[in-house]
Amino acid sequence: MFEQTIAAIRPLDAEAMAAARALQARLTKPAGSLGALEELSVRLAGLAGTCPPPLPEPAAVAVFAGDHGVHAQGVTPWPQEVTAQMVANIVAGGAVVNAFARQIGASVTVVDVGVASAPEWDAKAGGGAAEGLVAMNVRRGTRDMTTGPALTRDEALDAIAVGIRVAGDLVGAGARALLTGEMGIANTTPAAALIAAFTGDDPAEVTGRGTGVDDETYARKVDVVRRAVAAFSGKVLASGSPGPAFSGKMLASGSPEPAFSRKVREGAVEVLAAVGGLEHAAIAGFILGAAAHRVPVILDGVSAVAAALVAARLAPDCVGAMVAGHRSAEPGATVALRHLGLDPLVDLGMRLGEGTGALLALPIVASAVRVLHDVATFDSAGVSEK
Amino acid sequence: MFEQTIAAIRPLDAEAMAAARALQARLTKPAGSLGALEELSVRLAGLAGTCPPPLPEPAAVAVFAGDHGVHAQGVTPWPQEVTAQMVANIVAGGAVVNAFARQIGASVTVVDVGVASAPEWDAKAGGGAAEGLVAMNVRRGTRDMTTGPALTRDEALDAIAVGIRVAGDLVGAGARALLTGEMGIANTTPAAALIAAFTGDDPAEVTGRGTGVDDETYARKVDVVRRAVAAFSGKVLASGSPGPAFSGKMLASGSPEPAFSRKVREGAVEVLAAVGGLEHAAIAGFILGAAAHRVPVILDGVSAVAAALVAARLAPDCVGAMVAGHRSAEPGATVALRHLGLDPLVDLGMRLGEGTGALLALPIVASAVRVLHDVATFDSAGVSEK
Repeated sequence: MFEQTIAAIRPLDAEAMAAARALQARLTKPAGSLGALEELSVRLAGLAGTCPPPLPEPAAVAVFAGDHGVHAQGVTPWPQEVTAQMVANIVAGGAVVNAFARQIGASVTVVDVGVASAPEWDAKAGGGAAEGLVAMNVRRGTRDMTTGPALTRDEALDAIAVGIRVAGDLVGAGARALLTGEMGIANTTPAAALIAAFTGDDPAEVTGRGTGVDDETYARKVDVVRRAVAAFSGKVLASGSPGPAFSGKMLASGSPEPAFSRKVREGAVEVLAAVGGLEHAAIAGFILGAAAHRVPVILDGVSAVAAALVAARLAPDCVGAMVAGHRSAEPGATVALRHLGLDPLVDLGMRLGEGTGALLALPIVASAVRVLHDVATFDSAGVSEK
Repeated sequence: MFEQTIAAIRPLDAEAMAAARALQARLTKPAGSLGALEELSVRLAGLAGTCPPPLPEPAAVAVFAGDHGVHAQGVTPWPQEVTAQMVANIVAGGAVVNAFARQIGASVTVVDVGVASAPEWDAKAGGGAAEGLVAMNVRRGTRDMTTGPALTRDEALDAIAVGIRVAGDLVGAGARALLTGEMGIANTTPAAALIAAFTGDDPAEVTGRGTGVDDETYARKVDVVRRAVAAFSGKVLASGSPGPAFSGKMLASGSPEPAFSRKVREGAVEVLAAVGGLEHAAIAGFILGAAAHRVPVILDGVSAVAAALVAARLAPDCVGAMVAGHRSAEPGATVALRHLGLDPLVDLGMRLGEGTGALLALPIVASAVRVLHDVATFDSAGVSEK
C-alpha cells in the first residue's frame, strides 16, 4: 500500500492551473484583489487536474491519537492518561474540535493509532468499536526516544499505513477535503525533534512551550529534543536537509531521480522511527493518501507540519496537496512551514491542536474554490473593465 | 433616530465578560490555547450582556453602494458606471460577495445610498425595488471633495440614518451578526481622507493603490487626499485625534463627558461631510445600529474601518461591538485598526471590499462563540488537569 500510494502521487496539473489563472483574470473583480485566495484556487485546480476544482465538501477531520514514552522525561505537566480521557471527550463530542467541526460542517473521526491505555472506550464498546472511534492501535505508545528509537521501522511503516487507509476510507465515503488532527500528551516534543531533524534548525529554535510549560520544564524539553536528535543526526543530515530551494522544486513538480529518492525515503522513515510519534507517522500517511487521491489536505498545527516534513521526504509532490491551515504558536510550526514553502491561512495565536486550526481554515479554502464556480465574468455580467 | 441610537449604546457588560473568562478556564483545553478566539468570545459575551452570548447566526451582509465626485480627479482607472454595474451584478448573485455569502451562509442586502445612476435596476424594477436591493438613495453621488465639502451636514446625517435603519431592519428580521460591505468606484480615496483626518497620519501613509493604480495615478491620489484633508484640518485636529490611548479608553468603557462628546460628534460629522462618501456615512450608521442592538458588527476593509473611526467618534462605546474581519492590503486599514485597538482575524492580502473579508471572518467568530456553548468542562468530561 505504501509503495502504491507513493507511486500514485503526481505533480500538479499545469494545464488546469493555467485555466484557473485565466479564469481568475476574467472574473468581476480587480486582478489580484483576492490576495492569497487566488493562488490557492489555482493550486487546488492543479491538484484536481480540472478547473474549477471540486468544492472541498464534505470535509473530514481525522484525529490521530497516540502516547509518548518521552513523557517519562517530564516534558509536560499533563498526566499521560489525559490522552485517553480526551479521546473519550472527542468521541462524546465535547472537545473544541467537535464544536468547530459542528460549526463549520465537517465530520470528526478519532483514530487510536497509539494510545497507551484505553479504558474509557474499551469499557464502553468492548474493545475500541465505539461510534466515531477507529481502533487501529499499532503500539500502546512509543518508547522513550532519549534512550533509543521511539519506534521500530515496521511500527513506523504500520502507523503510516493506518493514515493512508483512513484517508482512503474517508475519500471513499465521499470526503473532498481531509483535515489533520491529533491528540497526544507530550506530542509537541517529538514534533519539535522531527522538525529539528528535517530542517537542521537548532532544537532551541523549534521547541515551544506546547500547552504551556514553565521555564524549568521548557529547558528540559529543549534538552530532550537536542539529545534525541543528536543520537542520529550524523546519519540523517548526510542525506541533505530539505531547505527552501528543495521545497521550491517540490512545488515546481520535479521529483528527484529514483535511487536518490529511495535513499531519502529510507532516511525519512528512520528519523520518523527514531523520534516521531505514532500519530505523526499516521498523519504523514494521511497526507500521502490525500495526495494520491488528489484531495486537498488541510494541515493543523505543529504535529501536522512535522508530519508533513516526513511526507514531503517520502513523496515530494505531495506538498502540492497540502494547505497550511494555520500558524500554530509553536515556533517549530513556522520553521516547518517555511521549509515546505507554505503560507498559513489563519494566524491567531492558537496552540490547541486536535484539528482546530485546520477547521478554521476550511471555509476560506471552500470560498477560494467557490469563486471559480460562482462568480460572473466581466463579459457575462456586462461590467466595464478599466 | 440618530440621538436615540447613540443613547442606546452602552459599555460592554463586565459581569458577562468575567463569566466568560471563568468558563474559558474550565473548558477541556489548555488555558489560552485558543489564542485570540478566547478574548473575542469574552468581548462578545460583554456585548450581549450574557454568557454564553448568542451564536452570530443568521448573519447578514449589507453592501452600501455610492459614487464619488472625486472620481473626476482621475484617482482610479475604473469608469464610474462600474458602481451601478457591480450593484446589478451583486443583486444578480454574480459577485465574489455572493459566492462567499453562499459558502458561509449569510444573506446579502444591497443598499443604494449614493449611486450616481441606476439604469440597470431602474429598468428592471421600475425605480429601485428589485429583490435584494434597498433603494435609499440620499444623493446621486457625492460632490468633488477637492473643491468643497463632499456632502452637506444634512446629507451626511441622512446617510448615517440609512445605515442605522438597515441595521435595525436586519436585526428585526432575525440577524444576529451584521457584516459591513460596500461598492463604490473611487471609494478608497475618501476612505484614506477619513483615516488621515481622524488619525492625523500623513496622507501618503494611509493612501493605497485601491484596486491597483499605476504610479502616476497613485501620486495624484495622494495629492487629492492631502488637499482635501488640508482644507479643514485646522478645525478638525483641534478637537484632538483619537490615538491609541483614547482607543484604550473606549474599550475600557468610559465615555467622555457630555459637552466634550457633543463637540466631538459635531466635528466628526463635519469631517465625514467634508471628505466622506455616502457609503462611509451609511456604514458608520450601520455600526452604531449594530451596537445599539448589542449585535456584533464584523468590519470588512478600508472603507469599513474608515467609517468605524467616524462611528467611534460619535459613540465611543460602539467599538465594543466591532470585530475586525480582516486586514485589507490598503495601508490605511492597518492605521485605522491600530487607532481603534482592533486586531483583524484574517490577513490574506485581500483588497476587494464588498464585504468579502468580513465574510471570511464570520466562521471564526461563530466558532469562538460556539466554544462557550458546546465544549465540556474538565469536571463534566472527567479529564484530569495538569
